[in-house]
Amino acid sequence: MNAQPLRLSTAQPDFEARFAQRLHWSSETDHAIEQRVADILADVQKRGDAAVLAYTARFDGLQAASVSELELTQADFKAAFDALPVAQREALQAATARVRRYHEAQKKANGESWSYRDEDGTLLGQKVTPLDRVGIYVPGGKAAYPSSLIMNAVPAHVAGVPEIVMVVPTPVRGSVATGGVEGGNGAATATRGERNELVLAAAYVAGVTRAFTIGGAQAVAALAYGTATVPKVDKITGPGNAYVASAKKRVFGTVGIDMIAGPSEILVLADGSTPADWVAMDLFSQAEHDELAQSILLCPDAAYIDAVQAAIDRLLPTMPRAAIIAKSLNDRGALILTRDMDEACAISNRIAPEHLEVSSAEPHRWEPLLKHAGAIFLGAYTSESLGDYCAGPNHVLPTSGTARFSSPLGVYDFQKRSSLIEVSERGAQTLGTVAAELAYGEGLQAHARAAELRLPTIPPMRGTPR
Amino acid sequence: MNAQPLRLSTAQPDFEARFAQRLHWSSETDHAIEQRVADILADVQKRGDAAVLAYTARFDGLQAASVSELELTQADFKAAFDALPVAQREALQAATARVRRYHEAQKKANGESWSYRDEDGTLLGQKVTPLDRVGIYVPGGKAAYPSSLIMNAVPAHVAGVPEIVMVVPTPVRGSVATGGVEGGNGAATATRGERNELVLAAAYVAGVTRAFTIGGAQAVAALAYGTATVPKVDKITGPGNAYVASAKKRVFGTVGIDMIAGPSEILVLADGSTPADWVAMDLFSQAEHDELAQSILLCPDAAYIDAVQAAIDRLLPTMPRAAIIAKSLNDRGALILTRDMDEACAISNRIAPEHLEVSSAEPHRWEPLLKHAGAIFLGAYTSESLGDYCAGPNHVLPTSGTARFSSPLGVYDFQKRSSLIEVSERGAQTLGTVAAELAYGEGLQAHARAAELRLPTIPPMRGTPR
Repeated sequence: MNAQPLRLSTAQPDFEARFAQRLHWSSETDHAIEQRVADILADVQKRGDAAVLAYTARFDGLQAASVSELELTQADFKAAFDALPVAQREALQAATARVRRYHEAQKKANGESWSYRDEDGTLLGQKVTPLDRVGIYVPGGKAAYPSSLIMNAVPAHVAGVPEIVMVVPTPVRGSVATGGVEGGNGAATATRGERNELVLAAAYVAGVTRAFTIGGAQAVAALAYGTATVPKVDKITGPGNAYVASAKKRVFGTVGIDMIAGPSEILVLADGSTPADWVAMDLFSQAEHDELAQSILLCPDAAYIDAVQAAIDRLLPTMPRAAIIAKSLNDRGALILTRDMDEACAISNRIAPEHLEVSSAEPHRWEPLLKHAGAIFLGAYTSESLGDYCAGPNHVLPTSGTARFSSPLGVYDFQKRSSLIEVSERGAQTLGTVAAELAYGEGLQAHARAAELRLPTIPPMRGTPR
Repeated sequence: MNAQPLRLSTAQPDFEARFAQRLHWSSETDHAIEQRVADILADVQKRGDAAVLAYTARFDGLQAASVSELELTQADFKAAFDALPVAQREALQAATARVRRYHEAQKKANGESWSYRDEDGTLLGQKVTPLDRVGIYVPGGKAAYPSSLIMNAVPAHVAGVPEIVMVVPTPVRGSVATGGVEGGNGAATATRGERNELVLAAAYVAGVTRAFTIGGAQAVAALAYGTATVPKVDKITGPGNAYVASAKKRVFGTVGIDMIAGPSEILVLADGSTPADWVAMDLFSQAEHDELAQSILLCPDAAYIDAVQAAIDRLLPTMPRAAIIAKSLNDRGALILTRDMDEACAISNRIAPEHLEVSSAEPHRWEPLLKHAGAIFLGAYTSESLGDYCAGPNHVLPTSGTARFSSPLGVYDFQKRSSLIEVSERGAQTLGTVAAELAYGEGLQAHARAAELRLPTIPPMRGTPR
């Protein structure tokens, strides 16, 4: 097996075109999926529990007489946690504690209510409050990551959301699983769905309130509209396949949603000071997610790029997921020689990568130049994987260049703000005159009069000046 | 003319059903509009300026040889400002200054970068940066509000966005205007598009960088994809008709967008201590926007509700927009008798109104009970219209119950965050062990190895435990 990321140099005359081609990724929407999802949503909205049961039987092969039979209990969570090896239990707890600490700092820095008073006593401010109830989608099958549950549940918890409802499909082996779950292949023999014990243990550690073993578009619908058994939530977060993504887009507006993620990406800016093995493994760690994942190295040192390629060649055969890694690097990876680190930073800003490693002996020299990225990993010791699991910051990050305008999942995603305005009697005089002038200018006389009625002397009403 | 909002009492046995019926509003999407918008977007993406010119000629009746002919200049803005009466100039400036002050406080309270270091030297934090370039859509025709431009431009400015691009259609009278502009009726005689001078003056005061007299889906497309003349932006905000809303939804992901607003709403909680005329006028000020606007009063005092109805009867004939007000109040308004103020607060939380007036002698008694609202106006002197124009907080607010999970437009909408992580050599030891344990548990060995390679002694690689 061979993994050869595309070699490019910014000095090549056709660099821009070739680089653009490598970056290209299209998020085509499959109309057949969209239509099936629309039908499932409408059915769950209409028939509630009965529809959820029918789709769960059909797609996950999981039979139940009622949706409450599909509810997991806190005892299930605890049993899963207790059954884990000590090292895994401690790792889950340590990661959760660090993620919590970071998000508590985030709330304190950016998520508290505030107000001030004008000289005339008028109060202005903003009240920050948690959402009442959120739903977290956890995929079944190959992408069932307990770390993802922690990254979604902890910020909700820290925000003060009183009720966190998890849905996680547990398809029976051999089930159809076209309704939106990734798992479910193999012989059709099991009598109950396959649970991921690490996910259940993470639910225990992260503090999930309720959980249902349902998935796909039917689970998103149940959370968005509510059924007799599944409570209606205010926002749905968490990753899922094309069915889940399409369902989330469709219920947006009825509930809030988080971002719809594209393939994961890493960009490494290297000045050649980090051991090449480390950087090669960082590129692997992105590539092993998915054949569509993208790993790019930008470096002004050609010899170092050679060393990284040599490390790739040497390390690849040792990796259990070598086939996925090779496909991802061959199809979407790139090793790019830049004129200098400044140019590497400028290119990084154009890409606005999800993960950005500044693998340099002087990371703080380059950090101020980096404007757009989901997460910035500074220095040789900061591998992306430390951030993925336990450094503290969230691993749910904007992909596909959306870091130009969006942010990591955070406490702020589980809060909302209400403006507070209390105008004093004196304040109503100053503000009333200004508001009335502008309202008349816009031809909105009731707006003007509502302000003028509060003045000590009410002026006559003006006609429409426009 | 008569305006009789529906009278309800929470004590009626059929209250829930009748109230639900009155609240009902459906945001049906028109498939014909969606298809036309998809075609316009694709065409602008492909043909750029040529397509923009063609649609502007077709829908706005505005002929130009190049898109640069449609660009407004800073001199245009200044001329419009200078030509205004002094009172309007001063009102625009006073409103802008207050809105700016509020949003500066918001940025300071909730929008600054932060970081901390662990005991082992590991740095964790978040860098908050402005977007590079944003587009503001300003409708032409009847909904051309300079206040709306101020409310969109000022938070972008305060966030530090270096480039604010405005688009505003200036349809020639008699043009088709089906491409997404509200204006354009009357006889077809004018040779140039109709400009709203107050909007241009507001662009001067609020600090717009560039502006083009284009509108509809074609303007949204030009901002989202960029053309030879119109620069590509990172986010598009601002209100528009069904074409604009559909176009914004469709380009979401390529660029950020703000909320898609439903009809405007006000909910007044009254304890009977505010003059009934004031409350009646506040209900009017919502109703005059639009026949679909919704004005609701919740009050535990039946005699006060009668007094408000009497004020409505007396004041309605004096209002220039009486027809719209009457239609809105008759079709969608409600005066609801509650058992007490506590019940009124509970109902308000279920509605999660866009505008919430607490017209009470004790507003601070009730405010803590109010969980969901776009903006909360406290006390008799705080008419919604003061907030709409100049109190300081933003008037772009979540509608249709979305205040359960979303927030007023703010500085945060024009910033994005990047996580910062710098793990120290010692930190990599602690974190590496935890990350590797979890990564192996998830079957992601490259993640585990990226962490383990940074340990002082590299352990042997484990197989896949699952």
